[in-house]
Amino acid sequence: MADECDVLIIGAGPAGLMLGCWLARTGVKARIIDQRATKITRGHADGVQCRTIEIFQSFGMAERIQMEANELSEVVFYSPDKDGNLVPTSRIPDTEPDTSRFRHSVLNQGRIEDFLIDCMKTGGLAVERLMSPLSLEYSDSPTESHPITVKIEHLVPIEDSSDPASGLYRSNIISDEEFNRSRLRGGKVENIKAKYVVGCDGARSWTRKYVVLRIIYAAHRFPDNSDTPWRATRPTFIYWGVMDARPITDLPDIRVKVVLHSANAGSLMIVPRERNLVRFYIQLGALQPGEKIGVSAQSPEKIIESARKILAPYTLECPEVEWWSVYEIGQRICKTVSSKDRVFLAGDAFHTHSPKGGQGMNVSMMDSYNLGWKLAACVKGLTSPSILDTYGQERVEVARQLIEFDHKFSRLFSATPAVAESEGVSMEEFQALWVRMGKWTSGTAVRYDPSLIMTASSPAKTELVQNVIIGSHFESQMVVCYADAHATQFADRLVSDGRWRLIVFAGNMGDENQLQRFNYLCDQLMHADESPIKKYTPPSADLNSVIEVLTLTSSSRRVLSYSAFPELARPYVGKFRYPTYDQIFSDEVSYLDGGGTAYSGYGVDPDGPGCVVLVRPDQFIADVLGFEQCVENLAIFFDGFMVKGK
Amino acid sequence: MADECDVLIIGAGPAGLMLGCWLARTGVKARIIDQRATKITRGHADGVQCRTIEIFQSFGMAERIQMEANELSEVVFYSPDKDGNLVPTSRIPDTEPDTSRFRHSVLNQGRIEDFLIDCMKTGGLAVERLMSPLSLEYSDSPTESHPITVKIEHLVPIEDSSDPASGLYRSNIISDEEFNRSRLRGGKVENIKAKYVVGCDGARSWTRKYVVLRIIYAAHRFPDNSDTPWRATRPTFIYWGVMDARPITDLPDIRVKVVLHSANAGSLMIVPRERNLVRFYIQLGALQPGEKIGVSAQSPEKIIESARKILAPYTLECPEVEWWSVYEIGQRICKTVSSKDRVFLAGDAFHTHSPKGGQGMNVSMMDSYNLGWKLAACVKGLTSPSILDTYGQERVEVARQLIEFDHKFSRLFSATPAVAESEGVSMEEFQALWVRMGKWTSGTAVRYDPSLIMTASSPAKTELVQNVIIGSHFESQMVVCYADAHATQFADRLVSDGRWRLIVFAGNMGDENQLQRFNYLCDQLMHADESPIKKYTPPSADLNSVIEVLTLTSSSRRVLSYSAFPELARPYVGKFRYPTYDQIFSDEVSYLDGGGTAYSGYGVDPDGPGCVVLVRPDQFIADVLGFEQCVENLAIFFDGFMVKGK
Repeated sequence: MADECDVLIIGAGPAGLMLGCWLARTGVKARIIDQRATKITRGHADGVQCRTIEIFQSFGMAERIQMEANELSEVVFYSPDKDGNLVPTSRIPDTEPDTSRFRHSVLNQGRIEDFLIDCMKTGGLAVERLMSPLSLEYSDSPTESHPITVKIEHLVPIEDSSDPASGLYRSNIISDEEFNRSRLRGGKVENIKAKYVVGCDGARSWTRKYVVLRIIYAAHRFPDNSDTPWRATRPTFIYWGVMDARPITDLPDIRVKVVLHSANAGSLMIVPRERNLVRFYIQLGALQPGEKIGVSAQSPEKIIESARKILAPYTLECPEVEWWSVYEIGQRICKTVSSKDRVFLAGDAFHTHSPKGGQGMNVSMMDSYNLGWKLAACVKGLTSPSILDTYGQERVEVARQLIEFDHKFSRLFSATPAVAESEGVSMEEFQALWVRMGKWTSGTAVRYDPSLIMTASSPAKTELVQNVIIGSHFESQMVVCYADAHATQFADRLVSDGRWRLIVFAGNMGDENQLQRFNYLCDQLMHADESPIKKYTPPSADLNSVIEVLTLTSSSRRVLSYSAFPELARPYVGKFRYPTYDQIFSDEVSYLDGGGTAYSGYGVDPDGPGCVVLVRPDQFIADVLGFEQCVENLAIFFDGFMVKGK
Repeated sequence: MADECDVLIIGAGPAGLMLGCWLARTGVKARIIDQRATKITRGHADGVQCRTIEIFQSFGMAERIQMEANELSEVVFYSPDKDGNLVPTSRIPDTEPDTSRFRHSVLNQGRIEDFLIDCMKTGGLAVERLMSPLSLEYSDSPTESHPITVKIEHLVPIEDSSDPASGLYRSNIISDEEFNRSRLRGGKVENIKAKYVVGCDGARSWTRKYVVLRIIYAAHRFPDNSDTPWRATRPTFIYWGVMDARPITDLPDIRVKVVLHSANAGSLMIVPRERNLVRFYIQLGALQPGEKIGVSAQSPEKIIESARKILAPYTLECPEVEWWSVYEIGQRICKTVSSKDRVFLAGDAFHTHSPKGGQGMNVSMMDSYNLGWKLAACVKGLTSPSILDTYGQERVEVARQLIEFDHKFSRLFSATPAVAESEGVSMEEFQALWVRMGKWTSGTAVRYDPSLIMTASSPAKTELVQNVIIGSHFESQMVVCYADAHATQFADRLVSDGRWRLIVFAGNMGDENQLQRFNYLCDQLMHADESPIKKYTPPSADLNSVIEVLTLTSSSRRVLSYSAFPELARPYVGKFRYPTYDQIFSDEVSYLDGGGTAYSGYGVDPDGPGCVVLVRPDQFIADVLGFEQCVENLAIFFDGFMVKGK
């Protein structure tokens, strides 16, 4: 007898756990398995980008990041002056103003996984460890509700299977299998039947190798961007050390991010971390084509020695090294990320690159964040499976940009700086590129193309709301909650619970004509037969359970009483039909926390006709509509993929 | 054989737990006992004032409050218009600007106790329940290290001792003893020997009754303040209902604080709480002198019915009542709060009053916060026991102000408003008084008198720093951390760990003369024989372990390199002699979070000679000094009560 589940997640790293959060939150029957005996506790990824924290906020986890992580405030560039002495040449903010309400932060991957695991647990989902997939079969039979059968082997530890001491465990220069061979043996075998399988099983993905047919698994080369002035003196085969340590140094900038190019000893990056740790990325050397890194020759002492040479004349002692590893830079991408829209890849399973940009863990979680709500909607019968095509459409393009960025970035990082008249890379230009890439690396620049679930932009839409861009995520502005006068980050209301949202810029409620138009719109959305709210909300469910309406007035809370708003804007919910108090907001200055600039920030005329912004469950903007044809246009959009409930 | 501890705390409510946090944090051997079988989980106190959250921050707990509590943004006053209809007459912020970096918040007492219990636990201290004191004996023998012996009875539950359903359990109209009599019986008896005992055992304090001799335990009357225009139509004997419920109402302001006087049906206060709860205070009726409240006649239905009459014509339904109680207003104070400086009272044990001002739990915790560090310093032999006298000096005056405030406030609350020409209280004046009292109720207005551990102010000191007031707590300003460029609330560095702090306004580090003066001051503080840092820091301890120096420059981080600061400002600490990175700050605009106004906020000339502010372990400002006589004056101050370590 095979156990049945809706979604089987293979791999419990950040991508798998983020998917688990979505599925647990939306009540999907899922399982998540991992071949490793334990979660990592030290080292590995640590960068948490602004956009990632925005998503964590939507699951209620951002505060945990903020309490433990180290926010990065400043980047200092060090390079040789004309006499060859290392000096700080400029200081810039790590996160540019207006990027996000959150800040680029760093915290070890193990803690981030803890937060995701705790979030999954509130939805009843836990990781099953020491389970390794053996085979996957797919049935085309139309009567099969769970067409995929995955054979799983339960692994048994031969000896103590806690994290081995070597820093090379889980590095990219040696495989897990090599480590596991003498440590785990096969045990009983189990069949799991699933509607969908998602391979979040990392760079050496079993799912990719076993399932996805057309694998483009080779170094992915991009042509040199001819408008870049960079010339990398060592084009490739650079290898780096990475280390988390508590240093003692006379370098004055050890608690801010430092990007340092020495004259001749290589480059180094410093990322100050939580608990007084510092993450070091240290250029170790170059390989000849075909040459392999000598595994046994690597050690923390050797990495520290390399760092000392790069940092000289500044001193460095590291009495406590918490973790270290060695890695090669290599970009790889798999352009096919699904098979029959039943098996998917996410995260490192379809794109790998170097770690210094702090992108890997973040882009991986954003992959499965894109996929999670779509899978949940299909499993629950709310939408047609056709929306699953958009996963690959949207995420392969992001991965392509990631690889392109990383390729450029890694080469410049490993390059020798131009000093005086010597040949090399101009440090001024390097820093300018760094700033230009800030928005992209923060994760807030992602923009998806039109699709079944994303309309195309138009001048008429832009006219209604100038700074709300279809295909981008909905950015936050400070607004005031009508019912409780709290200053509120508007995007905090975009909770990840599977609901679509209609954000109604209601305009000035003191204008009698505008108030009538707004009331009429609400009446139509609630009662018109073609309204997706009426059509796709089950009769017994709360009015806001499929599409939630968030209203933002340009007029103050004093203009119209809360009780005077129509029911659609403040529906009664739950067993006792309690009124909602968190769906209406005003654009005014709050008592203590600013505000009053939301309409101008979004680019909406406060005394104009208003508009409606449709936001997907993953916070991406799907459409912009005027009040007049709003219900008709929403009907056309939703009828394209929604399934009418019973 | 009697168990020995340094401090025995009797009573594990907020006052006892706050004391427990201090003692656990400072490594004092303490026990904390409570006669109740369980912690409260619902109802009771809920207001958490700004100053209380500042203290929670100093123990690392403020974020937990902020995550769960409801911040109060607005107060709306309702009273009858000239036709007798209830209308909102004005809206004001609940916390006035510049009161604190934190906001008045509400959360049920049980959760606040949870946070304190967790904080104690990190120091290894846990509450011992079902333990009731029987007797206390004091030995005058000078050879006795633990002169107090308390005989304790372990109680045994007769039946299930979870919280009884009645809302009158732990109300002030019926005693715990009455409830407990049929529920608990005595078990084995234990003797505890202690150096100090603190009675935090509430309004019916056993410690007070048993130990403190000169008890002034009667209604404490203050003369009418003749400059107030109020006339209370019912001078006293008013009783009130209190209820935590989830209401359904058409009152538009149910999610902000509402202070409502009806024309003839009495008054009511609404406090919106966490988890969509609302706390209601509802005037129920008046008693004749000598009359007692009929316990059996009280019920939530009766309270709701009273609320409906007051709120009419607004509707009210409460499908879920989480907790309710009934109380009488009564002010009592015990002017003697210690016996032989060995036994102390804190919290309700020495002052009781009405709950609507949200003061009781807060002032109680501030009592034991004042006492905790002093007890710890005496127990550890750092100071002479003479500092314990300052506990009563400082806190009895606060309690007296509290009672005075409450007396005035309660009478006005229960008064009938003046409507048209009828006699009653002017609502405009009531609101004006409310605003005037805001600073006091926030807890930030407390100012202690000069004492052994508090110098007197002088014009010369005020000249140095105009807005730092000796006797008040050190207020926060946004500053920038030198080492990591983080925008930092300066007062966040005043961690409650028992250390004194010297806050050095170093001035402009780009001014060569000022830099020399600063370096000379640091040199003297570190090396001069009379310097209290040199004299009272044990030779084997870290340089910042008794007195921590916090430096604030008026010049930017770019002016002087971190490594160029003297060792006193950034001492090496711990086993590995790691450098500190969190003791030097600059007053400049941060990249993203403001700042640059600290010198002007504190009232120090950025290009002037600088000054030094001495802050006690409880954040109160003890002295202000110029650079020149700094070491000599500090020596005189500290030599008055410190004990030289070995």
